[in-house]
Formats: sequence, C-alpha cells, structure tokens
Amino acid sequence: MSSSPFYAVRYEPGELWLLDQTALPMEERYVRCRTVEEVARAIETMVVRGAPAIGLAAAYGMCVAARTKEPFESARARLARTRPTAVNLFQALECMCSVEPSAESLEAEAHRLFEEDASASRRIGELGAELVPESATILTHCNAGALATAVLGTALAVIRAAHASGKRVRVFADETRPRLQGARLTAWELMKDGIDVTVIPDGAAAHFIGRGEIDLAVVGADRIARNGDVANKIGTRGVAACMHLADRPFYVAAPWTTFDLSCADGEAIPIEERDGLEVTHIGAEALTAPGAKVRNPAFDVTPAAWVRALITERGVIRAPLAAGISERK
Amino acid sequence: MSSSPFYAVRYEPGELWLLDQTALPMEERYVRCRTVEEVARAIETMVVRGAPAIGLAAAYGMCVAARTKEPFESARARLARTRPTAVNLFQALECMCSVEPSAESLEAEAHRLFEEDASASRRIGELGAELVPESATILTHCNAGALATAVLGTALAVIRAAHASGKRVRVFADETRPRLQGARLTAWELMKDGIDVTVIPDGAAAHFIGRGEIDLAVVGADRIARNGDVANKIGTRGVAACMHLADRPFYVAAPWTTFDLSCADGEAIPIEERDGLEVTHIGAEALTAPGAKVRNPAFDVTPAAWVRALITERGVIRAPLAAGISERK
Repeated sequence: MSSSPFYAVRYEPGELWLLDQTALPMEERYVRCRTVEEVARAIETMVVRGAPAIGLAAAYGMCVAARTKEPFESARARLARTRPTAVNLFQALECMCSVEPSAESLEAEAHRLFEEDASASRRIGELGAELVPESATILTHCNAGALATAVLGTALAVIRAAHASGKRVRVFADETRPRLQGARLTAWELMKDGIDVTVIPDGAAAHFIGRGEIDLAVVGADRIARNGDVANKIGTRGVAACMHLADRPFYVAAPWTTFDLSCADGEAIPIEERDGLEVTHIGAEALTAPGAKVRNPAFDVTPAAWVRALITERGVIRAPLAAGISERK
Repeated sequence: MSSSPFYAVRYEPGELWLLDQTALPMEERYVRCRTVEEVARAIETMVVRGAPAIGLAAAYGMCVAARTKEPFESARARLARTRPTAVNLFQALECMCSVEPSAESLEAEAHRLFEEDASASRRIGELGAELVPESATILTHCNAGALATAVLGTALAVIRAAHASGKRVRVFADETRPRLQGARLTAWELMKDGIDVTVIPDGAAAHFIGRGEIDLAVVGADRIARNGDVANKIGTRGVAACMHLADRPFYVAAPWTTFDLSCADGEAIPIEERDGLEVTHIGAEALTAPGAKVRNPAFDVTPAAWVRALITERGVIRAPLAAGISERK
C-alpha cells in the first residue's frame, strides 16, 4: 500500500508547507508558513485539520520558532491556543518541550513524531483491515485520511488497507456539515486511490443504516477519554447511535497520541464552538434566514458503550474499552 | 393564535399562486401557475413543498385544469407523477375525482380540502401544545410549518400554540440538508412570529440531545403507515433514534390526510430519490469533489417504536400506535 501523492504537512528548515484544505478539492495549492503566527492561523482557519495533522503542524511550528528565533514559550502558548479539542496538539507540544530547545533537536523530535504517526497509521490499517469483511459497504464521517495525518490516515488507513488486500470495499462518506470534509476531502482522497466512494448528506446515514446497507462504520477521533468515550467531528455521535441501534459495528481508529488518560470520560473533553458563519454561509452565499441564531459545536462525544472497538497501533481494543485502554498505557 | 401573514398556496379562479419556497428567505415572491404543467413543475421543483401543501396545490391544479379545459384524466395523471412519497397528494387527487368535474364543484372541493387542512392544523396545535412543558427546548427537523400546509403547520402549529399559550418555548431547527428547509424556511417562519429559534447543522442534533438540552422533538410527516411507521424528510430517523436512546419524547404531528392505511408498514412507502445536484451544489457552487457519486434519498422511515405519540386532529395517538390508528379510522 503506497502513500498518497500529497502531504498535509511537510517541513523544510524554517518553513512549514501545508496543503490548503480550505481550497480542496477545487484547487491543490500549498501554503508556506514562516512564522509561528502563520502556523497558528493555518490551524485555526483549518488550512490544516485532523487531530494528528494538527499535532504535527504544531510540532513543526515550534521548529519554525527555533529557526526564526521567536521566544520558545510564547510560541508554545500561541500554538496551544489554536484549537481546544484535539489532544494531539497538546501531546505534540509536550514532546517538543521535552527536548533541548535547539533547532536541530526540535526538528529531530518533530520528524520523530511524524514518523511515529506514519507508523501508527500503517499499523492501524493492518489491524483494522482484519475487521473488514471480504465485501463491505463502509460508512465514514468527516475526513480521517492522509489529509488528517502524516500519511494514509486512521479510518481511511483501515479502508485503504482493506482495499489493498483485495477486499471489495465500497465507502459511503457523510458530507459532514458545516465544513463538508466528507464531500470535499474524503471523496477526493478516496477517488485518487480508486476506491468506490458515494457522498451522502449527514441526515441520510440513518436511512442507509436502517435499511441494512452499511456493514460497518469507521471514523477517526480528536480525543479519547480513559473510559473510551470518543470526541470526534460533530455528527459522529448520531452515526454511532444508529449503528448501535442496528447492532452493526462502529469502530474508531486513532493513534495512541489521541488518547488522553487525564480525561476520565467524555464530559471532561472541551468541545470547541466555531463561528456560526460556517453554518449560515457557503462562501459569500447566505444559506440561513438572516438574523437567525446559530450553534456550531465542532465536535461531539460518542459514549464508549456504542463503540465496538478502538483500532490503535497498540492493538484492537474491544469492550470493555476502559480495561483495554488501561492495559495498553 | 393568528395565521401567518403569508400563504404557501392561494387560489383565484384559473390561477394558483404559490409562495416560491426556492427563493425564501432572501426573497418573498409569488409564482402564478395557469396550466397543469406549471403546477406540476412547481411541485417537482419544490416551489411548493410539505405534504399537506403539495396535496392542496394538486387539488387546485385540478381546478386550473377545469378552467383551462385541460383533459381531466391527463391532468390528474400529470399531477400524480410529480412526487411519490407524500400521500396527501394522492388523497387530494382522489377527493377531486369524487366530485362532478365542473369548475365550480372542483373549486368547492379544493376549498373544502383547504379548510379541512386549516382546521386540522388548528386542532393539532391545541392538542400538541398540551404535550409541551411550561418551559421547553424543542427540536424540529425540516419545515412542517405554515409553508407546508394551508395555515400554521403541523409541528410548527404545536410550537405556535404552545408559544401563544404563554409557555417559554425555544426551538432548535436542524438546517436539513440538502435543501435546507430548516435553515431557510423554519427559521424564517418562526422569527416572523417572534419565536426563539436557533439553527444547527443536522449532525449537531445528537450532540444537543446527548447533553440533555432537548426536552422534546416534534416533526411533520409525508406518509404514516398503518402500524405507525413514519416517512418524513431525510434526517428524521436519526433524530428519532437519538431521542429514543435518550428516552426523550419524539412526536409526529400530521393531519389524517397523511395517514395511508393501505401501507402495512414503512417498507411499503415509496421513497423519492432526488437529483444528486441538490447535494453536490449550492446554486452554481460545487461543494463536493467533482466526479464523486452521490445518493440523495429525500425521505426516510422512522419506526413506530421510536415515536412517543402521533398528534392528529383526531386526537393524540400513543403507543401502541397501530391500535390507536385503527381505532380512529
């Protein structure tokens, strides 16, 4: 299984290059960040998104800080302030603070994190593919692909590995309002790999699940609590609820950097609320009655009880998730 | 409780006037239909939508046919071909075929159907308001308002009546992809009436339900089977699933014209699949990776077991729904 012909995150000394995910799929352009502020804004505006990729962008942001001689602590603080939910961001910054603050040491550590994430994705793909039947229609939500990680993805690593092993895989991708990562990014990624993908409105997932058309669902995660509760893109909880009621497997694929053992459960996970304009407008076009109030939580929490298994590079963790997580720490 | 200062459907001899719901909320303009073909296209393109309003538009379409001297049977057949799911369309055409085919008789029958629907909405509002607590956050999906009926609506008649009786009502409106009836129509209607409304992405409903922020959900219906299974706008099933898992009430408000006792259950209800362009584009803007496949079912089926009660002008029908429906026929 080869890697995809693009990188969400690529570093050259003093420069972080990000594939601009706000421009995809219409335009494939890279953004160059040469200051910590540029990196921070790219994370905030979702030029780069996906929990592992956010962590890597922040790690390389610290390398940029070292090369531009920006103060270490204010760089760390600025990057930590970008987005609150994906714990990979904080884990990565902690790793960067654990090494000698020279450009060389920081770059070595960031590259190590990149390779660790790539290796985790490969292992997640291998382990997850074993859970996929020979012929399967797989539902996914948002984008947990190569665009969200160093390479391959998490949920999409599972799908890619199953496809590469010759299984007949067909993907339903929730469009994932409001930012449409499913329609824009997941569909784009999977089509590049020649994997059969069909985009559906988020509200249609329950319909296809109810009709027995979905064999399994697999998604990524932004933070997983000690008890196995999973924070992931808004809309994930509804998919998990419907799979649970249909008694079909709902899997979460995530590297160990997405686990936050300091959170006892999902209630302890901070949920980012983003600008209502993401809901009311597409570009300059208003979608919503002018003056209407809007709520735009970016993530939700799926209870551990609705998760059939967590697919991690440390193994597949089945219910009870809390015990399996505890064993692997 | 006064009626809204607009009509979805208004007839003058030989002319059907429809408030163009594809232009709302940005523009409030009426479309005049003077041939059966114009009426049929208005239904197909969703200038008029909502099961009861579709039925009334078809009834008045038959009046237009009489005035323009179009052949009765081909007019009926053309109107019956517009949309397959809302049973009100077929019920209304059946009523129109039961009277003498003179313009005067047809117009009297269509007006009778209009008044019957208005009266049903008022009664649904009264009965449904009793189910609303003194202070409540109510989730609704799509638009089951005055825009979908003769006046007041079904789900929104319940909300309007609760509000008018002095209850503190706050509404969460799912935006309702792909056509955004919640964001465009429900928010617009409720703001006109001074009712507190907040638009959320469809995927966020499970989040707010999970956090206990939703006291009850109420939606309309396009067709209700003999066993109480409910076909309604795509996305309804997911809301019902989450309310069911949270053990919170999920109500369906619909006039008796929405019941189809010839359907044993939801599997017998035909589900319209609409053009994928509704999903991939907003106006001329592409939202989805070019070339991606799309599925766009316009409706889903919610199992009777997840419906706490049906609110109809013949009374509130509680579980077991099948028995209650059978008693009222």
